[in-house]
Amino acid sequence: MTEIELVGIDADDTLWQSETFFAEVEEKFIELMSKYSSETGLEESLSSNEITNLRVFGYGVKSFTLSMIETAHLASGGNIASSDIKQIISWGKELLQHPVILLDGVEEAIRELASNFTVYIVTKGDLLHQRSKIEDSGLDKMVAGFDIFHEKDPESYLDFLIEKNIDPKNFLMAGNSLRSDVLPIVAIGGHAVHIPYELTWDYEKITDGTVPKSGYSVIESIRDLPSFVSELHG
Amino acid sequence: MTEIELVGIDADDTLWQSETFFAEVEEKFIELMSKYSSETGLEESLSSNEITNLRVFGYGVKSFTLSMIETAHLASGGNIASSDIKQIISWGKELLQHPVILLDGVEEAIRELASNFTVYIVTKGDLLHQRSKIEDSGLDKMVAGFDIFHEKDPESYLDFLIEKNIDPKNFLMAGNSLRSDVLPIVAIGGHAVHIPYELTWDYEKITDGTVPKSGYSVIESIRDLPSFVSELHG
Repeated sequence: MTEIELVGIDADDTLWQSETFFAEVEEKFIELMSKYSSETGLEESLSSNEITNLRVFGYGVKSFTLSMIETAHLASGGNIASSDIKQIISWGKELLQHPVILLDGVEEAIRELASNFTVYIVTKGDLLHQRSKIEDSGLDKMVAGFDIFHEKDPESYLDFLIEKNIDPKNFLMAGNSLRSDVLPIVAIGGHAVHIPYELTWDYEKITDGTVPKSGYSVIESIRDLPSFVSELHG
Repeated sequence: MTEIELVGIDADDTLWQSETFFAEVEEKFIELMSKYSSETGLEESLSSNEITNLRVFGYGVKSFTLSMIETAHLASGGNIASSDIKQIISWGKELLQHPVILLDGVEEAIRELASNFTVYIVTKGDLLHQRSKIEDSGLDKMVAGFDIFHEKDPESYLDFLIEKNIDPKNFLMAGNSLRSDVLPIVAIGGHAVHIPYELTWDYEKITDGTVPKSGYSVIESIRDLPSFVSELHG
């Protein structure tokens, strides 16, 4: 029998929209830059610069904003206008202050899950922004707690579980990212549930064939999560 | 009798240099901007912009870098050169990758303290940068753990203590900031020890007379902390 003692749920693009807003800004960025260069591939340059900068800047909107500014400098051949820099920073501020828009069925699913299991929101990245979103969502009042990792790797998940005295085999994690919510959980022997989102940030995509063929489950919507967990636990 | 069950120690400007590096970059920023404007008060503009942005950007180097860029746009009358923006971003990256330089006596003090008490490093701000510095310092191997708050307010300290099942009256916090390491601790009934640093970031200064006249201690150097705690505990 499988016993689930703790359920972890990812936040961005699992509970609420996130990548959609980044993609909107990216589109505006590409339009802004069209007056400097007719070259294609700007989206790829931004994405690659962003991923290169991850090691130094970490995750989140501020990192993304700095990477956009850096990409703007490069892609304009060193000619980006001061006013366009200001525009990019404004987009960053808008992203940071965007209202939280819950995905369909989230509230009901979390309420039902939390009535049967200990549920934690488990996310990563920018401490202030992630925390603000969790609090704005109102979901923090339904769940047992939340944790913001610096990185969703096996070590961080293990630290989190050790602190709560939970064996990985009694832990279930659900989220939209194979890289962050599924792979590390499979690695530590927990239960991973993939809930794909319509958009995936390049960095979270797994392109090198390291996705395990088995050992995790996929559900179409977070609406299906409460019954999935209950059946597994049963 | 006072019983100390947990000792918290601030990180930036208590364990290692931080404000010094920010001040160096600020000086370079002012020099860079001198070609755009002969007006004085640039330092104040930057500082005020930084503090205004805190609510949206939070603490840390990325926020500081974005505030510098924004101030550069404003102070140049919308004429900041692309290459100077690039320079500002480079300073941000340098700040994020600066080697950790422990303050005098820190290693010995922490080793001695940790041999007699449960010691946590308690800091705030940027998850990745703070964590990197803690790990680079090697001090994480001497202490029981560390925590990175989003804000050092009474509520965060209480959450931290509740999680560890420690009564505030059995908690001692030492650090260089009256605003972050002393005031909230006095507010929750813990023991606060102020260890002033030669430089204080404007935001951490208390100018409105809310510094309590008593209820906390001041020591000159972290070297004096182990004996101070032992005597208090005794």
